[in-house]
Amino acid sequence: MQFLSDNSAPVHPRVWEAMHAANGADMPYDGDALSRRLDEAFSSLFGRECAALWTATGTAANCLALATMVAPHGGVVCHREAHVETDECGAPGFFLHGAKLLPAEGEGAKLTAQSIAVVLAGITRGIHQVPAQAITITQASEFGLVYRRHELAAIGDLARERGLGLHMDGARFGNAVAALDCSPAEAAGPVDTLSFGCVKNGGMDAEAIVFFDPERAQIARWRRKRAGHLQSKGRFLAAQILALLEDDLWLANARAANDAARAIGGGAGDRLLHPVEANEVFVRLDTAEREALRQQGFAFYDWDEATARFVAAWNTRIEDASALGRALSTL
Amino acid sequence: MQFLSDNSAPVHPRVWEAMHAANGADMPYDGDALSRRLDEAFSSLFGRECAALWTATGTAANCLALATMVAPHGGVVCHREAHVETDECGAPGFFLHGAKLLPAEGEGAKLTAQSIAVVLAGITRGIHQVPAQAITITQASEFGLVYRRHELAAIGDLARERGLGLHMDGARFGNAVAALDCSPAEAAGPVDTLSFGCVKNGGMDAEAIVFFDPERAQIARWRRKRAGHLQSKGRFLAAQILALLEDDLWLANARAANDAARAIGGGAGDRLLHPVEANEVFVRLDTAEREALRQQGFAFYDWDEATARFVAAWNTRIEDASALGRALSTL
Amino acid sequence: MQFLSDNSAPVHPRVWEAMHAANGADMPYDGDALSRRLDEAFSSLFGRECAALWTATGTAANCLALATMVAPHGGVVCHREAHVETDECGAPGFFLHGAKLLPAEGEGAKLTAQSIAVVLAGITRGIHQVPAQAITITQASEFGLVYRRHELAAIGDLARERGLGLHMDGARFGNAVAALDCSPAEAAGPVDTLSFGCVKNGGMDAEAIVFFDPERAQIARWRRKRAGHLQSKGRFLAAQILALLEDDLWLANARAANDAARAIGGGAGDRLLHPVEANEVFVRLDTAEREALRQQGFAFYDWDEATARFVAAWNTRIEDASALGRALSTL
Amino acid sequence: MQFLSDNSAPVHPRVWEAMHAANGADMPYDGDALSRRLDEAFSSLFGRECAALWTATGTAANCLALATMVAPHGGVVCHREAHVETDECGAPGFFLHGAKLLPAEGEGAKLTAQSIAVVLAGITRGIHQVPAQAITITQASEFGLVYRRHELAAIGDLARERGLGLHMDGARFGNAVAALDCSPAEAAGPVDTLSFGCVKNGGMDAEAIVFFDPERAQIARWRRKRAGHLQSKGRFLAAQILALLEDDLWLANARAANDAARAIGGGAGDRLLHPVEANEVFVRLDTAEREALRQQGFAFYDWDEATARFVAAWNTRIEDASALGRALSTL
Repeated sequence: MQFLSDNSAPVHPRVWEAMHAANGADMPYDGDALSRRLDEAFSSLFGRECAALWTATGTAANCLALATMVAPHGGVVCHREAHVETDECGAPGFFLHGAKLLPAEGEGAKLTAQSIAVVLAGITRGIHQVPAQAITITQASEFGLVYRRHELAAIGDLARERGLGLHMDGARFGNAVAALDCSPAEAAGPVDTLSFGCVKNGGMDAEAIVFFDPERAQIARWRRKRAGHLQSKGRFLAAQILALLEDDLWLANARAANDAARAIGGGAGDRLLHPVEANEVFVRLDTAEREALRQQGFAFYDWDEATARFVAAWNTRIEDASALGRALSTL
Repeated sequence: MQFLSDNSAPVHPRVWEAMHAANGADMPYDGDALSRRLDEAFSSLFGRECAALWTATGTAANCLALATMVAPHGGVVCHREAHVETDECGAPGFFLHGAKLLPAEGEGAKLTAQSIAVVLAGITRGIHQVPAQAITITQASEFGLVYRRHELAAIGDLARERGLGLHMDGARFGNAVAALDCSPAEAAGPVDTLSFGCVKNGGMDAEAIVFFDPERAQIARWRRKRAGHLQSKGRFLAAQILALLEDDLWLANARAANDAARAIGGGAGDRLLHPVEANEVFVRLDTAEREALRQQGFAFYDWDEATARFVAAWNTRIEDASALGRALSTL
Repeated sequence: MQFLSDNSAPVHPRVWEAMHAANGADMPYDGDALSRRLDEAFSSLFGRECAALWTATGTAANCLALATMVAPHGGVVCHREAHVETDECGAPGFFLHGAKLLPAEGEGAKLTAQSIAVVLAGITRGIHQVPAQAITITQASEFGLVYRRHELAAIGDLARERGLGLHMDGARFGNAVAALDCSPAEAAGPVDTLSFGCVKNGGMDAEAIVFFDPERAQIARWRRKRAGHLQSKGRFLAAQILALLEDDLWLANARAANDAARAIGGGAGDRLLHPVEANEVFVRLDTAEREALRQQGFAFYDWDEATARFVAAWNTRIEDASALGRALSTL
Repeated sequence: MQFLSDNSAPVHPRVWEAMHAANGADMPYDGDALSRRLDEAFSSLFGRECAALWTATGTAANCLALATMVAPHGGVVCHREAHVETDECGAPGFFLHGAKLLPAEGEGAKLTAQSIAVVLAGITRGIHQVPAQAITITQASEFGLVYRRHELAAIGDLARERGLGLHMDGARFGNAVAALDCSPAEAAGPVDTLSFGCVKNGGMDAEAIVFFDPERAQIARWRRKRAGHLQSKGRFLAAQILALLEDDLWLANARAANDAARAIGGGAGDRLLHPVEANEVFVRLDTAEREALRQQGFAFYDWDEATARFVAAWNTRIEDASALGRALSTL
C-alpha cells in the first residue's frame, strides 16, 4: 500500500480519455482548439477574467509565474520550508536570473502577514540589499495545512501596501479547496497568479498557471518558450487540464485524497505533527515503529529522523487508508 | 491533407500502449523502472556505452546538452538558419546563461568544417571576444538535408583539434538515418551529445538526450531539474521513447515519412529548393500557385514569399503525398 | 608616436587635480557631494532633466543602460560591427541575462532606420523569436562616423513607433559633438539613454550613464551594485566626470583629437576607408607600407589584412599627426 | 572624528604617487607593464606561485573568484552574516547565474568546520537540492574577528574531503594579518582564491583577486571582461596594488588601523560585543549614549538598535581613537 507521494499516482481514466480524444492533428504549440479554451475555462472556474497557460511541472509553473513579477535584482519572500526554497534545485535562481529567495518563518510551512513583515523590515540598506518584489505562498502548505480566508486577506493587504506581487503555489490547490469547502476563488484569495496543480491530482504532466491579471500572461508565454516548455503537441496538456475541470473532477479527486488522509490521521492521535487538513499526514514515529509499518506493507517517506510522511492520492483506496490508520493507532 | 509540420502529428498507437502500460504507480521522477532502462537501450542502439535522459521538448534537449559543454562566457558555432538560432526565442541564451551563438554559413542549413573554420578564424581578439566552446549541427538539417559520414568526420576532426564539444540536434534524426540507410552510430558520427527526436516521429512529448560520454549526463540531470524539466511521472516519457526504440519503430516511422516526402518531391521537378533527402520538401511557388494548391485541400507552411514547405510525418498517407506530388507537377 | 588607441591615453591634468581635491573623506558609494552633483551637471549640459550615474567602463555603461530597457527574453538591434556585438566578450548576454543581440547592416558601422526596419521585419514568428525591445547606436561609430540630426530623428521615430528603447554608445560622444559642431543635445538626438564616454577623452576610469528618463536610473542603480560596479570611493569617479564637464574640457579634448585625426587623414587621400569625421582614421595599407610606417616610429593597430587604424587622443600632438599625414601621403 | 567606515578613507600618498607614475601611455587593459607584474608580486608575497588580477570592488573580486569554482546549479556555503549574503544586492546570484548561497552559523560571523558540516549534512535529496561546490569565509570577519591557523586548517580539510572550492573574502585581509602577526600565507591558510583587499587599506579603487591555482585565473579573465570590469587603463589599478605591496605598506596601514581600534575598544569594557582583533569595534550603546557620543563629534554607524559600529582606517589618528575610547569609558 503506497503512501509515498501523490506525485507519481496513476493518471485518471477520464484524463486518458481526453488525451486520446486530442490525438487527431491540430495546430502545434498552443494554437490548438483545446489550449485556446483554457482562458475561458479558468475564467469560469474563478468567476473573473483570467488567462491560463499549461506547463509540464509545478516547478516550471511556479517559476514562470514569479518571472512575471520579479526582476533579476529582486527578491521573493517564501517560507523557509517552501518547495521553491528547498526542493527545486535552484530553479527560481535560474528562471529569475539570480533573484533571491527571502526565507520567512511560520507554523506548518504557512507564512503570515506578520512573518512576512519581519522579513520586509530587515530590508533597510537600500541598494545594498535585494528589494522584495513578490511573495509566494503554498496552498495547501508543504505540511498539508490550508490558508483561511482572513489569513489570505491579511497577506494580500500587505502585498498591496508594499507593492509586491503575490503568487500561490497550488500544487495541491484542489486539496485545499476540498479542505476549506469553499469556492476556488475563496481559496485563491487575493493572489495575482496561481500554479493550479493537476499532476498530483489525476493528471499526467500538465499544470496550469493562472494569471488573474491577463496582461501578465504574455510575458510568461515568452518565458515558457525560452525555457523549452512550449510543447509542440500542447493539446495533450490542455486536454488533461480540461478533463480535470470538467464536472469538477479535480475536486472529486482531491476530496477522495483528503478523505483517505483523514482516515490515516484518525489513527495517529497525538503523534500527529500537524492537524490533517488536506492529503498529507505527518506522524512522529521512531525507527522501530516505521519498520513495523513497513513490514505490514505500508510504503511511505521518512521526512526526518523522527517523522514519517504519508500522502494520499486521488486513487488511494479508503480501506487501505483505514488499515493504515488502524495500524498507527495500535503501535 | 495536412503537410504543415510533423511536430503536431498524432501519437503512434504503440506509443499509446506503452504509456498505458506505465500507468501503474512507480517511483517518481526518473527513479522508475522505465527511465532506468534508457541508458541501456541507447547503449544497445549505438553500440557503445552512453547515458540517456528524457526531456519534454527538442529545445530543452538541445539546450541541456549544450549546457554540459559551454560556459556562460563561451560560444556555440551553429548554422545561421539553425533552429537554436532562429526559432527558440533565445532559449540557448537562457540555458547557457548568456553564452553566444556564433552563426556560420553552409548550403542547405548544413555546416561544413570549412564554414566552421571561418567563424573560428574570426576569433582573434582574446578576452574581448567570446571563445567558441562547442559546435551544434542538425541531422537532418532544417532544410531536410543529411550529413554524410565524411562530412561528419571532417567536422568531428575540427572539433577535436580545437577542443570543442560537438552536439547534434536530431529532432529528425530518424529521418536522417532512414535517408542515409546507415546505422544510428554512423548517422551520429563523432558527436558528443545527440538530441534524439521522438516527438516528430510518433511520440507525444518525450525527446531523448544521448550522452556518448556518460559523465556529462550528471550535469544535465542537475540542469534538467533546475529548468523545471524533471517531471514527476517521468515514466510516461521513458515509455514513449522505449516504445519507439522497440523493434525499430522509430525507423519505420521515419521511413514512412521519407517515402511520403519523396512522393511529394517527385512532382516538384526543378521547383525544388533542395534535394529531398529526409521528410521535408521546399518548393518554389508563387502566391497564385499556393492558392491553387490550398483550394485542392493541401495545407502547408509559407516558408518565405517565394517558397512553400511541405512536411511529411509518420502518419502521412502515401496516396495523399502522391496526390500532392501530382498537383505540383501540373501547376 | 602612438596612434594605437585613445583608450589608454594619459589622464588630463585637470582630472588629476579634481581627483586630488576629492581625497578628503566623504560618504561612501554615491552618497558623496560630487556624485550627487551629477544629475544637475548633465541636466544643465543637455538642457533637460536627466539622471546620471558613474561607472568604470564603457562596457558596463552600455550594458547597465540596456538593462533598463530589455527583458531577458528580449532583443537589441545593433550594428553587426558594434562594440557590444564584437568586443565585449558577451557582456550584453551577461547583463541582460541572455537577451539576444540582433545585428543589422549599415555603411561605416552606422545603422539607418531602413537597416533597422529590415531586422524588425524579419521578426514574424511570435513567441518563437526574440522580440526586439531596444536599439543601440554608436556616436561616433566604430569607424569614426557621426550620425546627423535627420538620421537620428529617423531612427528615433522608428523606435517610438515600435515601442523600442533607444540607447547611444557614446564612448566617443565628445568627438561626435566636436565633429558635428552642434550642441550635446543635438548629437544625442532622441535617445533614451546615453553612455557618455570620459575614459577615452582625458578621464581615468569613469564613464557616465545619462538617463533622459530619470525614472529608469533607479533600476540601473540596483543593477550597478549587483554587478560589483558600485565603488565605495565613488567620489573619485564623479570628480573625473565633473572635471571634464567643467568649462567644457571634454569638448576641448575631443576637438584636439579630431584636429589631429584630420591632419592624419589629410595625407591619406583615397586610401581612406571612410571619411575622417571624428578621431579615427582607417587607411588601406599593405604589409610593406605598414612596415615602412612602423620603421618611421608610428605605432598603430592592424584593423584587418588590408587596413590600418590610427586613433588620435586628446593628447596627440598635432605635429606628430601631421608627420604621420605626410608619411602617408608619400607612401 | 570619523569612525563610520574604512571604505571611504582617503587614498594613501604613496598610492597617489604610483598612480601618477603610471600616467604615461602603456598598453591598454591588462597588457601594461604594471599589470603584468602582479603575478610575480603576489607569488613573492605568498611564497608560492599564484596569479593575480585587479578589479575595482570587493564585490566583483568575491564574485569573480567564486565564478571559477561554482556552476550555475551549485551552491556556496557562507556565513549568514557574510557580506556576500547580506550586502551585495544579489551579486553572487548575478555572477554565478543563480547559484545559491547556503547560509551557515558561527560566532562572530566566523564559520567553523562544524557549522559548515551541518549545512552539508542537510543536502540529502540529490538533484532536488543545490549541491554545495564552494565555501567562502571572511578574514577578518564582518565582526572584526580573525581565523586562527587551526581553524583554517579544519575548514580546508573539510573542503578538500568534500571536493569544495575554498574562497576567502579578504576585504580586510591586511587587518587580519596584522592581528595574527603571522605571514600572509598563514593568514590565507588553505584557500584556493583570495580577495586581497586594498580599497579599505589605502587604495582608491583596486582590489586583487589571488588565485593559488593559477589555472583558475584564466576563467576569471573572461568573466572580468564580460562583467564590464576590464578597465582600459588598468595600469592605474595595478599601480595602486603594487604601491601597497611595496615595503609592506599594506601591512603598516593595517597595523595603524588595528592600533586605533584597540585604543577605542580599550575604553569599551564589557560593552564590547566581540573582542577587538582587527579594525572594527562593536559596542552595545543605547540611543541616549549614541547621541551623547555624536554630540562630542564622533561619527559612526548604527549597526542595530542596540549596537554601534566604530571602524578605524589606515589614517585614523591614534589621538582621536583614544579620545573615543575615553568617551566610551566614561559613558
